[in-house]
Amino acid sequence: MNSFGQLFRVQIFGESHGECVGVVLDGVPAGLAVPVEDFLPDMERRKGGNQKGATPRKEDDIPIFKSGVFNEKTTGFPVMIYFENKNTRSGDYEKLRSFPRPGHADFVAHKKFGGFEDYRGGGHFSARLTTGLVAGGVIAKKLLRNITIDAVITEIGGDPDPERGLQKAIDAKDSVGGLIECRVKGLPVGLGEPYFDSVESLLAHMLFTIPAVKGVEFGSGFAAAKMFGSQHNDPIETMEGKTSTNHAGGIVGGITNGNELVFRIAIKPTASTPKPQHSLNWETGQMEDFSVKGRHDLCVALRAPVIVEAVTAIVLADLMMQAGHIARVI
Amino acid sequence: MNSFGQLFRVQIFGESHGECVGVVLDGVPAGLAVPVEDFLPDMERRKGGNQKGATPRKEDDIPIFKSGVFNEKTTGFPVMIYFENKNTRSGDYEKLRSFPRPGHADFVAHKKFGGFEDYRGGGHFSARLTTGLVAGGVIAKKLLRNITIDAVITEIGGDPDPERGLQKAIDAKDSVGGLIECRVKGLPVGLGEPYFDSVESLLAHMLFTIPAVKGVEFGSGFAAAKMFGSQHNDPIETMEGKTSTNHAGGIVGGITNGNELVFRIAIKPTASTPKPQHSLNWETGQMEDFSVKGRHDLCVALRAPVIVEAVTAIVLADLMMQAGHIARVI
Amino acid sequence: MNSFGQLFRVQIFGESHGECVGVVLDGVPAGLAVPVEDFLPDMERRKGGNQKGATPRKEDDIPIFKSGVFNEKTTGFPVMIYFENKNTRSGDYEKLRSFPRPGHADFVAHKKFGGFEDYRGGGHFSARLTTGLVAGGVIAKKLLRNITIDAVITEIGGDPDPERGLQKAIDAKDSVGGLIECRVKGLPVGLGEPYFDSVESLLAHMLFTIPAVKGVEFGSGFAAAKMFGSQHNDPIETMEGKTSTNHAGGIVGGITNGNELVFRIAIKPTASTPKPQHSLNWETGQMEDFSVKGRHDLCVALRAPVIVEAVTAIVLADLMMQAGHIARVI
Amino acid sequence: MNSFGQLFRVQIFGESHGECVGVVLDGVPAGLAVPVEDFLPDMERRKGGNQKGATPRKEDDIPIFKSGVFNEKTTGFPVMIYFENKNTRSGDYEKLRSFPRPGHADFVAHKKFGGFEDYRGGGHFSARLTTGLVAGGVIAKKLLRNITIDAVITEIGGDPDPERGLQKAIDAKDSVGGLIECRVKGLPVGLGEPYFDSVESLLAHMLFTIPAVKGVEFGSGFAAAKMFGSQHNDPIETMEGKTSTNHAGGIVGGITNGNELVFRIAIKPTASTPKPQHSLNWETGQMEDFSVKGRHDLCVALRAPVIVEAVTAIVLADLMMQAGHIARVI
Repeated sequence: MNSFGQLFRVQIFGESHGECVGVVLDGVPAGLAVPVEDFLPDMERRKGGNQKGATPRKEDDIPIFKSGVFNEKTTGFPVMIYFENKNTRSGDYEKLRSFPRPGHADFVAHKKFGGFEDYRGGGHFSARLTTGLVAGGVIAKKLLRNITIDAVITEIGGDPDPERGLQKAIDAKDSVGGLIECRVKGLPVGLGEPYFDSVESLLAHMLFTIPAVKGVEFGSGFAAAKMFGSQHNDPIETMEGKTSTNHAGGIVGGITNGNELVFRIAIKPTASTPKPQHSLNWETGQMEDFSVKGRHDLCVALRAPVIVEAVTAIVLADLMMQAGHIARVI
Repeated sequence: MNSFGQLFRVQIFGESHGECVGVVLDGVPAGLAVPVEDFLPDMERRKGGNQKGATPRKEDDIPIFKSGVFNEKTTGFPVMIYFENKNTRSGDYEKLRSFPRPGHADFVAHKKFGGFEDYRGGGHFSARLTTGLVAGGVIAKKLLRNITIDAVITEIGGDPDPERGLQKAIDAKDSVGGLIECRVKGLPVGLGEPYFDSVESLLAHMLFTIPAVKGVEFGSGFAAAKMFGSQHNDPIETMEGKTSTNHAGGIVGGITNGNELVFRIAIKPTASTPKPQHSLNWETGQMEDFSVKGRHDLCVALRAPVIVEAVTAIVLADLMMQAGHIARVI
Repeated sequence: MNSFGQLFRVQIFGESHGECVGVVLDGVPAGLAVPVEDFLPDMERRKGGNQKGATPRKEDDIPIFKSGVFNEKTTGFPVMIYFENKNTRSGDYEKLRSFPRPGHADFVAHKKFGGFEDYRGGGHFSARLTTGLVAGGVIAKKLLRNITIDAVITEIGGDPDPERGLQKAIDAKDSVGGLIECRVKGLPVGLGEPYFDSVESLLAHMLFTIPAVKGVEFGSGFAAAKMFGSQHNDPIETMEGKTSTNHAGGIVGGITNGNELVFRIAIKPTASTPKPQHSLNWETGQMEDFSVKGRHDLCVALRAPVIVEAVTAIVLADLMMQAGHIARVI
Repeated sequence: MNSFGQLFRVQIFGESHGECVGVVLDGVPAGLAVPVEDFLPDMERRKGGNQKGATPRKEDDIPIFKSGVFNEKTTGFPVMIYFENKNTRSGDYEKLRSFPRPGHADFVAHKKFGGFEDYRGGGHFSARLTTGLVAGGVIAKKLLRNITIDAVITEIGGDPDPERGLQKAIDAKDSVGGLIECRVKGLPVGLGEPYFDSVESLLAHMLFTIPAVKGVEFGSGFAAAKMFGSQHNDPIETMEGKTSTNHAGGIVGGITNGNELVFRIAIKPTASTPKPQHSLNWETGQMEDFSVKGRHDLCVALRAPVIVEAVTAIVLADLMMQAGHIARVI
């Protein structure tokens, strides 16, 4: 389904090459100032900017508030944020209809939606859908006063020097994957609603909706599987719960413990590699050579940090509301 | 919150050292035979059996059907499955109240629930809660005819020979972590409800509710971050969607593609290590030495495979219902 | 589905002649004292007491707290309340299997659940299921400090003297319907979450789950359809929103306005009338004469007030939580 | 909250005098043809047409499909339907800000949303919001093949001749209430998901979201409270469940029984009566005389039938999906 959240809910809509993409945010407290300029830095980050390896497709990505805002402040009713798709060039995609692109949703979407799916540019599966999420994230971040969320790329193509990792892909004329790390400072103790709505569960739920995410780990993550308990346990130092190490990544028993929240996600290489591929042609029923045209990122991880921050903020804002830390009127 | 699912819902209840643990399953189709003996193998697996490193605490773990079953078949109404806690020995835990145990929820539960939480044996945070989930998993597996779910331990303490990895921990008188891999065969193409209810999102949501899970990865997982697109893409070979490789792990665009579903999870070492620890004493406000008593697993990963299978089955049964593959009356 | 609520959730289970009935309450704040004796007055009212016209079936109806309570106070985790069914006499019902009882769910349940439903005494459709709701209502009432909820019978069989209305039915050897009115005092202004979760919507949703309810009206209700606007509008007298009349019944725009909340519900006559009936015999496929045996209320409205209060309290407690009026720890 | 539904979900947004109103529909099956002209008859009915007593404010109300539709058919992804607000004249409403209008949400909205609400023309509380619901209803009706839903006005101002009832109000220069009856033919046996999601519960939930609804009754409704069981029970005549009478209104035990679904709703008189009123002036804190300006219906019941049909169709489409009667691809 296309909505998520308990008290702070996101409903997503739109397609890559349709008229628009956007979100309806339900549960936004009344009285929050939402000047457009506050959204532009994160919208710009999502575009991948002028980085090497980012798609040459450019959209203005100016959020248009269609409801829920009056006199530049939220009203307490659904905030609909709308983004026009201006710079579409579907012709590129039409040519590929005979090849369901490996690594893309073409094949499964066709099977599931009986051929009625909007296949242009990936339709609803496109990373363009994250535009609305990033805008929702800006609102969520505003609600999380004194809490900072920072996601950064820590590795591209296995190289901790992302610049160099990216250059290797450019040189190889191939797409490439990457690692993102996110850190959240300033969280109160006690967020999270286990059994089922643990902080990890909700964050992982949202993180795995970001296209190309293949793995999520918190704190020590996969390394924990190799450790002894005496190494892994974080000794508690103070009555406020400060721990000397942070293998837990800020969450114990599904609940924040007041230390820094830390997690990492793995992003696979862009499925639309410039390299020729050999895969099924639907019309002939045979595997054949073909190439993906269109404008694509070589490394989707480049755009991912701001999206990771956005979904993190959305989840945390909801949990903060459930815990009574955010009032209904700001 | 303590319920999960859309058409097939699980509501969990109980505490480690209270009277019982259990689940209410809502949405179970009518007419399903549920003889107690069909549950016993998985219940037994959850106990960790007689394996070295598994807790000496033993419960009979016989599921008692308190509602929703009539003439040994499900009625279509909520199935309440109840497990008595017989073998409790809370005295061990009382002694530790002055030390919030590192790696456990003691500290966060105390802060969040104002000291009213049932702290005995971890209360609602205990792995004992998974008893009900495993029973729910048996019912979900029954609904998934011709689909097989197999989770196995692939590594203990970093050693691909789990027996040897465990022995190292025993020798070190320490607890230890492990890796689990789960494979699901026989899934139809088209399960999954993106944008937000992708297969990865729902599975990760549930997998991170299992105590001690620190990471989840699908298909190539974290290795994908180091790869080029031309390596990672799975060429499609047949009109049914069979791919020559399976880096996707059976899911593309959040939807099953008909290939084997593959994922791995990282389990941290049991927080209750036999080793002495140095951490906060709540009464003195100082860090002091202490040891965790009680009966504990050295390696919680030993019990995890059947729990992983159970939550996987629960998620997949729900998605199969949403996709119309499971009727309301069997 | 068998659960309801947003932050304060009720999951119902059980059958009339199975082992038990009960509820799991999720979202109950920690620290609430729940001595059994606080439940007994409402449990007693639900039984219809010794009133003429109430079923001679008697159950002890002692709530047993199976989870979520520790040291006599709630822990913040799911509170499972269990009621044993002791006084069952299913033989009476077996005889009727050839006749789907008019006014009962026998026919529809058989069609919907393929014959696997627990038909004994109405199974999950029995008014016995309301036992758990009444217990949940007691907890909800405790959360609604300084708010009073009172439901009373205002009419039986069309007679405003309920005693006399009931006697008419006894004399006629027939069952009979009734009217209930409920008034809630002390509510704050601002409860209700329109658009879809207006106070009327949530209350009506829950009220129509009570067996035999055929109508619900708020304030002026059906009489409003005959009025002019100048008569119906409630003039506002004070800055706190006190109105001189209360045709609105305390709700405007789906939100409480600080005046008394007033609504009425219509209860149909007990379907199990002692009178002989002429209806379909499933075995012969013909309409035939038959009589319903078993122990039944002549007038289910007699038991209804406490159930009406309970579901009202449950809805209002949830709305109070959503509005931030009830803390997570009491 | 502003969304409703399980598998077929409606998310509403917009304000009376903002830029737009609309809905996002989630769960619409793929492959449904949605030509604009199929929507126009119901959109026209909602406007109250040229009937006497309907507001002179006219909107074109052409649905604009912003997402989820490709090649004129639904794609299986969220369908966003957008209506521009063209004909707004907010000046009329500004003048009234000193008087919270009796019978309107002005007072409660101000208290709940801290003065940040969009008060122009009732904002999110306006009946204009039902525009999106009616469009959603058209889609739901398309999904309910062979099922007909008809709502009609049966009484205005207490007069079964609605024309005459309306004339009385016009003559009295006052607004007036009315009664609506809705009948649904062709429903299968077995819709409804008790305990909590009975057909009555879901319908009443949605019906009470329609502005001005004060009461809802099914079948015999409030009259049932005055009847004997032998009168009220509907004898079953055939193996398909046809009953000789229909006091049940087509629902027993919360589940459709295959007979006609029948219910009635009471609509209060338009709160914006042309008559002068005496009520609180927020600026002076005193009750004073004032008159509501602006363009208003004398009788909102005139527009209600198509809205009643829409919400009924939305609820039934969702239940039909849950019961497996509507496929994911049409």
